[in-house]
Amino acid sequence: MLDEFALIEQFFARATASGEDIQLGIGDDAALVTVPATQQLAVCTDTLVSGRHFPLATTAADIGWKALAVNVSDLAAMGAEPRWFTLALTLPAADADWLRGFSCGLAAMAAVNRLSLIGGDTTRGPLSITVTAGGWVAPGASLTRRGAQPGDVVCVTGTLGDAALALRRLNVVDADHARDAWLRDRLNRPTPRVAAGRALAGLAHAGIDISDGLLADLGHLLAGAGGDSATDSGGDTPAGAVIDVRRLPRSAAFSARAAANVAVDLQLAGGDDYELCVCLAPQNVPEATQRLAALGVPLTRIGKIIAEPGLWIEDEGGQRACSLGGARGFNHFSERGEGL
Amino acid sequence: MLDEFALIEQFFARATASGEDIQLGIGDDAALVTVPATQQLAVCTDTLVSGRHFPLATTAADIGWKALAVNVSDLAAMGAEPRWFTLALTLPAADADWLRGFSCGLAAMAAVNRLSLIGGDTTRGPLSITVTAGGWVAPGASLTRRGAQPGDVVCVTGTLGDAALALRRLNVVDADHARDAWLRDRLNRPTPRVAAGRALAGLAHAGIDISDGLLADLGHLLAGAGGDSATDSGGDTPAGAVIDVRRLPRSAAFSARAAANVAVDLQLAGGDDYELCVCLAPQNVPEATQRLAALGVPLTRIGKIIAEPGLWIEDEGGQRACSLGGARGFNHFSERGEGL
Repeated sequence: MLDEFALIEQFFARATASGEDIQLGIGDDAALVTVPATQQLAVCTDTLVSGRHFPLATTAADIGWKALAVNVSDLAAMGAEPRWFTLALTLPAADADWLRGFSCGLAAMAAVNRLSLIGGDTTRGPLSITVTAGGWVAPGASLTRRGAQPGDVVCVTGTLGDAALALRRLNVVDADHARDAWLRDRLNRPTPRVAAGRALAGLAHAGIDISDGLLADLGHLLAGAGGDSATDSGGDTPAGAVIDVRRLPRSAAFSARAAANVAVDLQLAGGDDYELCVCLAPQNVPEATQRLAALGVPLTRIGKIIAEPGLWIEDEGGQRACSLGGARGFNHFSERGEGL
Repeated sequence: MLDEFALIEQFFARATASGEDIQLGIGDDAALVTVPATQQLAVCTDTLVSGRHFPLATTAADIGWKALAVNVSDLAAMGAEPRWFTLALTLPAADADWLRGFSCGLAAMAAVNRLSLIGGDTTRGPLSITVTAGGWVAPGASLTRRGAQPGDVVCVTGTLGDAALALRRLNVVDADHARDAWLRDRLNRPTPRVAAGRALAGLAHAGIDISDGLLADLGHLLAGAGGDSATDSGGDTPAGAVIDVRRLPRSAAFSARAAANVAVDLQLAGGDDYELCVCLAPQNVPEATQRLAALGVPLTRIGKIIAEPGLWIEDEGGQRACSLGGARGFNHFSERGEGL
């Protein structure tokens, strides 16, 4: 009879690696970690619930990968170096096959980004996964949501809309088709922009990862504009932005598969992109582009920050105002008909 | 329409306090924290699921208190100073009344122990609460599960069995009766032994908090015996223990209410005590007792560590062996008929 301790040890041992900064990992009341003397600790937490954050048919391995990836993406968006994570796993039953797959996906994401699993808790209940991740960032060099300034160029890494398109095409997907498979990987196996975040920290004025959709997440940067990233002050003078939808970067698979009438919506509000959206002084854009090119990460200008609050969408038809409240970003308690 | 961000801000703002070591709390991709240069970071995580970790009828305020308290207890068991926590809250609906109560209980526990809420995530789903807590402890001074030595005296703080008795008497409880109310508070509003843990760190050889029941948790100390607390080595020479059940500390309410035929079982295996169980060299027991007396915390000798592996229970009838596998501690995936 496997008890929960045996389960954790058996399936998650492979994700546990101690480094010189992890003194004590899984197995005690708490883990013990040494934060390098010159670094701050960055901490984030995210929960994934079945049917809400991933389709019911998602494989255990993909769920394991994504549960950690969405947290690593948050650390990337701070310009932090991921180092460790804890896992709170609620499962309907202790299914060894499921756990094997889940732990494989989790361990793969951990290995790619050199994170150690340092603690956890398993509970019986409806499937739910909460990961808390920590990392290091030099004081003052973090990439916060505060600090965007009028005149800044708005840039995004990678391509937008792939995951949202994959979700939409879930039931029509042909697994043998390379483009759909690639899109599905963008949904199930997102690649957090860790190296890009670290390269942009100290160079960009502000940054965020795109999880709820470009408009919703850009809205957070606008709300934090005028603040001082280093001192956590500000957001007193919220700014606006103009986004040129013709510049939104598209993957080849997206261009081939997305119906014209939904493509822009998917890119603006689909979410689950796990790309970075950053605000850069115009003179820093070439340097930022060069740094990311060296990492193999495309950086695309998509618009600019303006002093007047509001969000404007620009296309062939000109500019039109876009209500932030209507940004349709993923927001668990305010979906149509479900809010308070 | 309240969205999740508004909910977090409205209900949890009172639990958020920034100190000089919390640079950036709720509201960004990650929080930023400075760990004091001379300290290590201790991190733990625990999930509470409705109907499993607390009775369905538990008030929101008690759930809020307990969700944080069980984590603070883990930090206490490391001898650490609690400093911050993140909250992952899964709720069937964004119920403002429930959230108000929950946040009150959470904030009260946070205030008592000077913790700041630095991050979180809210999700719609069956009620589940995962807290990850962090704190500081001086390197080498932490109270780990490793290091118990034959000859050590086994001591526990406070009294045992109160919470388990309250759970058992849930349906016969008379809320107006002071003793039942006191017992119920021991179940719903546990008091983590933070000051006691810090006072014992560096003095006790090993320590653990009693969440799964004395026998199950003492079993972890026996498995870690012979190890070196400071280097995380060992557990190579697991030890045994003899526990004298006549010495198990009882509260007045427990003595008055517990039926004779179940009292010892509740104290040995009931769980949810959130007291500390520590192993002390005999010559350090007076000093430990004195330190805890100064904090108003009773410390009781209940047995001793022996070289021979195994757990022995002693009462008027003599000593009898007690299988660790039969310790009946709370173990979510190995309860009778539910294991793999």
